[in-house]
Amino acid sequence: MMVNFTRYLPTHFVFGRGVENQTGAEIRKLGGTKVLLHFGGGSAVRSGLIARVEKSLADAGLASVTLGGALPNPRDTKIYEGIELIRREGIDFVLAVGGGSAIDSAKAMAHGAVYGGDFWDFFSGKAAPERTLPVGVVLTMSAAGSESSNSCVITQESTKTKRGLRSELNRPVLAIMNPELAMSVPPYQIACGATDILAHVMERYFTNEPDCDLTDRLCEATMISVVRAARIAMKDPNDYAAAAQLMWASTIAHNETVGVGRVPDFASHQIEHELSAMYDVAHGAGLAAVFPAWLRFMLEKPDKVMRIAQFGVRVWGCEMDFERPDRTALLGIEAYERWLREIGMPLSFRELGAKPEDIPAMAGNVRRTNPDGTVGQFYRLNTEDIERIYRIAADRDD
Amino acid sequence: MMVNFTRYLPTHFVFGRGVENQTGAEIRKLGGTKVLLHFGGGSAVRSGLIARVEKSLADAGLASVTLGGALPNPRDTKIYEGIELIRREGIDFVLAVGGGSAIDSAKAMAHGAVYGGDFWDFFSGKAAPERTLPVGVVLTMSAAGSESSNSCVITQESTKTKRGLRSELNRPVLAIMNPELAMSVPPYQIACGATDILAHVMERYFTNEPDCDLTDRLCEATMISVVRAARIAMKDPNDYAAAAQLMWASTIAHNETVGVGRVPDFASHQIEHELSAMYDVAHGAGLAAVFPAWLRFMLEKPDKVMRIAQFGVRVWGCEMDFERPDRTALLGIEAYERWLREIGMPLSFRELGAKPEDIPAMAGNVRRTNPDGTVGQFYRLNTEDIERIYRIAADRDD
Repeated sequence: MMVNFTRYLPTHFVFGRGVENQTGAEIRKLGGTKVLLHFGGGSAVRSGLIARVEKSLADAGLASVTLGGALPNPRDTKIYEGIELIRREGIDFVLAVGGGSAIDSAKAMAHGAVYGGDFWDFFSGKAAPERTLPVGVVLTMSAAGSESSNSCVITQESTKTKRGLRSELNRPVLAIMNPELAMSVPPYQIACGATDILAHVMERYFTNEPDCDLTDRLCEATMISVVRAARIAMKDPNDYAAAAQLMWASTIAHNETVGVGRVPDFASHQIEHELSAMYDVAHGAGLAAVFPAWLRFMLEKPDKVMRIAQFGVRVWGCEMDFERPDRTALLGIEAYERWLREIGMPLSFRELGAKPEDIPAMAGNVRRTNPDGTVGQFYRLNTEDIERIYRIAADRDD
Repeated sequence: MMVNFTRYLPTHFVFGRGVENQTGAEIRKLGGTKVLLHFGGGSAVRSGLIARVEKSLADAGLASVTLGGALPNPRDTKIYEGIELIRREGIDFVLAVGGGSAIDSAKAMAHGAVYGGDFWDFFSGKAAPERTLPVGVVLTMSAAGSESSNSCVITQESTKTKRGLRSELNRPVLAIMNPELAMSVPPYQIACGATDILAHVMERYFTNEPDCDLTDRLCEATMISVVRAARIAMKDPNDYAAAAQLMWASTIAHNETVGVGRVPDFASHQIEHELSAMYDVAHGAGLAAVFPAWLRFMLEKPDKVMRIAQFGVRVWGCEMDFERPDRTALLGIEAYERWLREIGMPLSFRELGAKPEDIPAMAGNVRRTNPDGTVGQFYRLNTEDIERIYRIAADRDD
């Protein structure tokens, strides 16, 4: 049964070809006057995107300061740099140009700049943000859904601790989304993104909440569309329609459009975080190893079989085996794995560059989100369970 | 291909059992101090709902004034009464307790109260609203989706002219949604509501925009869930899960959750408006007569067949006839009609109390939304086409 929920999405979406040229005008409407423009490596500069965005800001009469160097798995060190810059320059609007890494950095900087203490307090659980600066996004990658999600993930460099923060203050007020910008991303990144989008839906799909038919079907609709669009995009990165489906799917997968009224799981994300924190692999690639292993672990629990069978039938088109639903469930997992392989994702430890001997350390580090020391809601995983899941991924190399 | 779009939804949703008791606290958070409480007939009073909402307002320290008498197909006369009351009492927040009629009345009152001229200017097209008072909703019926839509429909009593206004200012800032409140509605009203929800999705589903796979599938997911939940609710009005699916579906069907990036049709709504304006039938009942007739008209256009076949296969589970897709399309229309009959909807003029001899007058009155004097985007209907569609519904009686 749908559980009670509240929902409010403050994000103004501007979607389509050429919309990055509206960035300045939109920020102005939202009251920004001096903008920190945070982005990643040189590709956004070389492509001329940063120059176009800067021109749009200037045309709208906004002052701006740039801060490059956003990295995958964003580090606390860059956040401290941004916070100092924001304070020194009197910035009142933080604009990320990029994907989840630049956006999550921008969110953390915005929180930290108006906080008296160390911003890491929000990630260690010592404090919760009570206010923030407005954050906007010019999205260049369809993946994390950070452009309107309530989540933000940062890694503490000194300890290799990767921690997520959930807060309504994490939702950007502006998302400028031109699918063409995501078409120039390397195919491996597009595949990592599609894997991440699917995983965000799956974290919500695998729930024990009964009779949530509408959100079940919205999840399934999104997954089918992502699977299809990723296949098209891998063959033809210039297919605008596929890029557009992936970009809007990345947003709705992680802003509760397909997840209201149900209890999500999110164990796989916590388990993956340790992989990308330890080996600096792409989050999507880590999920490609973890999520199928998580499903295979769940297949051993009789009361989880029917839900995985539903996933097999409705998302992957497997035929229902009414005598042996577990066979249908396995077919569904195998279809998911084949799709991951098809788009070039790693499923094993060796492909990821991960080491089986690190499993106990990683399992120990996985953030326990439940008071009883377990993680996950679909099934509460203890340390032994988490090790088993890592082991399933590691054993693919045998 | 997805067309460019902007999207911003200002509505704060509070969904679930008992949430009407939070109404006062939520309005207070949004800055309201003196509330006009607008509602319909006696059932909301007799059930104790109005008293509970009033207590919630008082508990939050808010003043309030009540205005009952909201009617189906709301009339301009009531709007003028509300506008005068708002001005006289210094109201700063308009709260509708009810379904689409009370909500649309509240929206029109909120626009009119802060406008120098006659509020009907907004509906005749003479002016567009530039500001409004904040509107909230305690929803008691799953149907119109007015709780977060950009639409508002009012009938001018003297001329029996029913006109809709599209404006971003039409979106309420607060939607209090307890599915239990919709469970006490008479079965006929539940069925009318489900018909309306399905129609809102169908208006968006039947588009010529190619390759909008994600929103296609979100539409299909919503339609399948509404068809299923309506069947359950008709058998057992006390099924909370079914009531919850219908209530949330009513919202997402009409706030672009399933419709971004595509051009909707909305001819059927315009054609229906003349039926309910002339005979005062329920909007959902009118749609049950118009929409199948519209589909049968479209079936004669060769380039529309595949889309109707997709509707048949994906929504109604019809088998695709690859040699004769038109047969599949017809099976889909017939399945839709059977469902309408099953939940007790009228499909013919006689059942509606409509008269074939009024067809020319109604066809003449249908609002032409296109500059060339036609209505609809999937196919542009001229006067002759509109008469044909009315005639298909009338001919069911032969």
